[in-house]
Amino acid sequence: MKTINVYGINPIESIIEKKPSLIKEIFIVENCTNNRILKIISKLRTLDINHFFISKVEIEKKLKTTSHQGIFGSIFIEKYKSYKELNGFIKNSNINDVVLILDCIQDPRNLGSCLRTANAADVKAVIINKNNSAPINELVFKTSVGAILDLEIFIVPNLVNAIKLLKNNNYWVTGLDGNAKKSLYDISFNSATAVVLGSEGAGMKKITSKNCDLIASIPISPNIDSLNVSVATGIALFEIKRQKSL
Amino acid sequence: MKTINVYGINPIESIIEKKPSLIKEIFIVENCTNNRILKIISKLRTLDINHFFISKVEIEKKLKTTSHQGIFGSIFIEKYKSYKELNGFIKNSNINDVVLILDCIQDPRNLGSCLRTANAADVKAVIINKNNSAPINELVFKTSVGAILDLEIFIVPNLVNAIKLLKNNNYWVTGLDGNAKKSLYDISFNSATAVVLGSEGAGMKKITSKNCDLIASIPISPNIDSLNVSVATGIALFEIKRQKSL
Repeated sequence: MKTINVYGINPIESIIEKKPSLIKEIFIVENCTNNRILKIISKLRTLDINHFFISKVEIEKKLKTTSHQGIFGSIFIEKYKSYKELNGFIKNSNINDVVLILDCIQDPRNLGSCLRTANAADVKAVIINKNNSAPINELVFKTSVGAILDLEIFIVPNLVNAIKLLKNNNYWVTGLDGNAKKSLYDISFNSATAVVLGSEGAGMKKITSKNCDLIASIPISPNIDSLNVSVATGIALFEIKRQKSL
Repeated sequence: MKTINVYGINPIESIIEKKPSLIKEIFIVENCTNNRILKIISKLRTLDINHFFISKVEIEKKLKTTSHQGIFGSIFIEKYKSYKELNGFIKNSNINDVVLILDCIQDPRNLGSCLRTANAADVKAVIINKNNSAPINELVFKTSVGAILDLEIFIVPNLVNAIKLLKNNNYWVTGLDGNAKKSLYDISFNSATAVVLGSEGAGMKKITSKNCDLIASIPISPNIDSLNVSVATGIALFEIKRQKSL
């Protein structure tokens, strides 16, 4: 199974707490006296997880960064769920469920930030297209602040099929497009909701947009072309969350 | 006056359009055939702005990045406005005005992204504390997508004095704090509004928080500690904007 390197105290604590089975091995700087790392070592012993003590120089040689805080782990990347599994998963939806669809987000920092925000907004699932999206790598993990350990992530070859599947299961699918005349705030999100965001430069693909039930924009100042995609994701998901809490 | 290097076609076009007087000089790659750059050259001639043609190698030596698209400029950084100027500026406020206060945002990408979002949300002004905030540099400019050319930015030595000044001018000041019990969505933003965001790690300083009229949180999943500060800024500013448009 593929692995990625995850570094820093917070991310390592988070993995040990949430998904220790994903840890292949942990590397810790020799003669460490940091209290949180000492607690981590004690947990690793209790859980019988492979861990090794190496020099700071070796850590930095492996990671090519100095911001490791004396600890990193080699973490198995889960096999993300497929279209077939989405089919089963989405059948058990209710009107409060929200799904985030990301169409070709290529910047790993933006992808990670969208996942962090999706996790904060309690989405049921995130659907990502397989081609033309950033792969889920170290930088995505880091900017998602470990959200990929909590989220149900589906990586599919064809977003249009995923959108059709959602529609067949009573989801209303809203695509965000800066050029749309309809405002996000004029939509009532009173059924199961999927929201689609495209890449910053090009937006949603035409074929994706064409398959949405509604296209809407976040009303922004004429001074500026667009919002950052992870900020737009936050604004949309929390507006939906606000309406569903009324 | 201090200068920063700004690179890439979009940022350079934006500066020529909005504030050509800030341009010290522009450097363009030799023998360029890119149509947008050719148009820029023609504008630079019309506006009589200094510009020079240099090799790709020289550009990359100066910028230490390869993502310049063949053009960069040396741009004067405006002297940001001071507390004294805020005093005069804030007197002419009405109940629809929104001010963003950023308390110790140290990551330049986050600061830039907050400014981009503030610009998109049409805020009247942004107030930043002088110490412990990222300086407005190349990376801030880039992630703000040039928003610093549009925004009224005040850099002040003491945020508490700025908050008191806003309160004396009929602003209601809401601080965001992940631990606050009151939800952002339970507040009516029906007067002139200032919203305060702190750094991701530490949040607002205690003394800042103590001087706010209200402290509120964005309701997030218990899965996760916090939102990215620029995403939280977007959610707050657009909720305020939504209410003010009702």
